[in-house]
Amino acid sequence: MKRHWNCLDSQFKYENRIVKVREDTYHFLPNNITHDFLVLEFSDWVNIIPETSEGEVVMIRQYRHGVRRETFEIPGGLISEEDPDPSAGASREMTEETGYTSDDIIHIGTVEPNPAIQSNRCHTYLARNAVPGAGQNLDPTEAIRIELIKKSKVYDMIRQGQITHGLVVAAFAYLLLHEGKDAVQPPK
Amino acid sequence: MKRHWNCLDSQFKYENRIVKVREDTYHFLPNNITHDFLVLEFSDWVNIIPETSEGEVVMIRQYRHGVRRETFEIPGGLISEEDPDPSAGASREMTEETGYTSDDIIHIGTVEPNPAIQSNRCHTYLARNAVPGAGQNLDPTEAIRIELIKKSKVYDMIRQGQITHGLVVAAFAYLLLHEGKDAVQPPK
Repeated sequence: MKRHWNCLDSQFKYENRIVKVREDTYHFLPNNITHDFLVLEFSDWVNIIPETSEGEVVMIRQYRHGVRRETFEIPGGLISEEDPDPSAGASREMTEETGYTSDDIIHIGTVEPNPAIQSNRCHTYLARNAVPGAGQNLDPTEAIRIELIKKSKVYDMIRQGQITHGLVVAAFAYLLLHEGKDAVQPPK
Repeated sequence: MKRHWNCLDSQFKYENRIVKVREDTYHFLPNNITHDFLVLEFSDWVNIIPETSEGEVVMIRQYRHGVRRETFEIPGGLISEEDPDPSAGASREMTEETGYTSDDIIHIGTVEPNPAIQSNRCHTYLARNAVPGAGQNLDPTEAIRIELIKKSKVYDMIRQGQITHGLVVAAFAYLLLHEGKDAVQPPK
């Protein structure tokens, strides 16, 4: 595609510990107009589907301040500077939030959470044969309950709107595509 | 779950035409500490999978300022105040961005794009028997190319990382779960 956009200016307008808000001014060549675009700069994120040898997913329930209620999710979080790579971050988040560990972690997909307004990525992993370990290791501001759910029931919960986190739904899209057609049951 | 969080204060720190940045201060009762949480207030969003009677999806390519390159997506956008309901917004976005119309639009899922830091939702629709209509009706700052892709190829493109938009991947999770197991082919 012909180059349509030239960035003329870029200014930070707000910053806290998890996001920087940037305003970029672009010249749009085809119509010869300038326009501002908002960009939210975050670290890269990870999430991980811990699956036991019995085909259960280790899910978590926690209060989320964006929607101001408890949600049903898989473990995940920010990649830390101490993580040697994203899979280490995913493994760390799984162990901190659920106590489960796995020595069989594979990458199944990477999304850009919102390419229109965010520059970051979220890497999704599958932890096979996850086993309960030393228990949770939570931050002082975390209260997380774990719940083991049969994978087929997880898909039903997505279909029925009981699991709504966009990055979690995307993670299970990768799992469905990774596992192939036997994974999906017809809707009831 | 016992009530763990009390919101003590809420302040807006930044605002532009698409987002309000809010800082909420909470008291976390179990550990008796206060902590700030960032919340990004957006309108609700919609996206829509336009599918032709030949099983092709009407995809779009456009430059995205968050990731500063062209991405491969389905139509979508903000619900407008003039839309009587989210499905009308999805239908409008489809027609503006692709020129396609459909009289058979169904809701297949709703995500919360990021419940930790956002309050909004994104509603996903499937437009069956989409047909080319009067052509695109783009904003002065939009340059969108459309491309018809076989649905099985769309799933391969997600698997192979050519489609990365998180809300688009989530939309196809809903489509997979809506259509049942015949929709998914085993990985190659």
